[in-house]
Amino acid sequence: MVSGPSGSGKNRVISEVMKVTHGLSYSVSATTRQKRPGERNGVNYHFVSLDKFQDMIRQDGLLEYAEVYGNFYGTPRKPVEDVLAAGEDVILDLDVQGALQIGERCPDAVLVFLLPPSIAELERRIRSRGTDDEVTIQRRMNSALREISALSQYTYAIVNDELEDAVRTLAAIIEAERCRTSRFVRASSDEMSSQSNRE
Amino acid sequence: MVSGPSGSGKNRVISEVMKVTHGLSYSVSATTRQKRPGERNGVNYHFVSLDKFQDMIRQDGLLEYAEVYGNFYGTPRKPVEDVLAAGEDVILDLDVQGALQIGERCPDAVLVFLLPPSIAELERRIRSRGTDDEVTIQRRMNSALREISALSQYTYAIVNDELEDAVRTLAAIIEAERCRTSRFVRASSDEMSSQSNRE
Repeated sequence: MVSGPSGSGKNRVISEVMKVTHGLSYSVSATTRQKRPGERNGVNYHFVSLDKFQDMIRQDGLLEYAEVYGNFYGTPRKPVEDVLAAGEDVILDLDVQGALQIGERCPDAVLVFLLPPSIAELERRIRSRGTDDEVTIQRRMNSALREISALSQYTYAIVNDELEDAVRTLAAIIEAERCRTSRFVRASSDEMSSQSNRE
Repeated sequence: MVSGPSGSGKNRVISEVMKVTHGLSYSVSATTRQKRPGERNGVNYHFVSLDKFQDMIRQDGLLEYAEVYGNFYGTPRKPVEDVLAAGEDVILDLDVQGALQIGERCPDAVLVFLLPPSIAELERRIRSRGTDDEVTIQRRMNSALREISALSQYTYAIVNDELEDAVRTLAAIIEAERCRTSRFVRASSDEMSSQSNRE
């Protein structure tokens, strides 16, 4: 699960890491918000009606969901479970709320937080989009700062200074986590060799 | 800290990972055993007398030490502490006993276990050295199997099937661990954003 405020470059990092990492799928969120120009249904989001979204909630079809500024967003359960059952990994792009919800229920989940290099750079990136009015910019800034305060609840933090470095680090985290012993050794043994092989 | 039985290819993996990872030093162990042909003092080991080794123990100059088949081996404390104080990392080649000793005292330490691809391959590698008699080979095999039983106490396990893959994975673990939030965020906050930036 990768979280990061507006301006952290999260979308770009995720799409690049998908290209260099085998056995990794992307979880497409469902949302009730309107599709924006350039967005594709089933690629950026599954765009669904409010009725459909409420059905998904009722059928326990979402791993997490939240209402944000009047729109609903959620993670469809089945695609994620199918990928994991096949022994592969899935990358989820989640806000702090959603990531912590899933993190609490799935001890095997890995929480990665993507940080902008500085608050000034964060503001510059949010402003450089040129599409938001001042109120929206301030709201995004406040929201970003609130999210960053949740950093300590994440396992890893990556500062996205150079895209290439951030992508390499996220790929390294995925590779490292795949060989964590707790993923394949269940019983913890206190047994220790009384003699060593160091000679 | 990297552990691995005879035949796991540990030395080779460590020396290769040193070449591709910045800010990483190698901790040279001290030992009372005789220098072997091709070994260099201060590179492979610090070769010291038993008196000198006992001095180091008395002066609390070793992070860990053990006696193995009549010889002493230990990790000099100061070089490790100097590297860490400079904000860099140090790689320690340790047997299970030594690694778990340090692991208990240093919560920031990372324990990596290097595995041969199979028991058969382990035996093949140990035999292929051609320098050991049958008793030594059996002793190495038994010791290796005992060490492997400690795997669950390690954070990560790498199967050394292809050298290049094992080196890349160890480098990935080092990179991932460097951005673990617990290394730089001390206070754990339950604060959570009530609103999200996902929109």
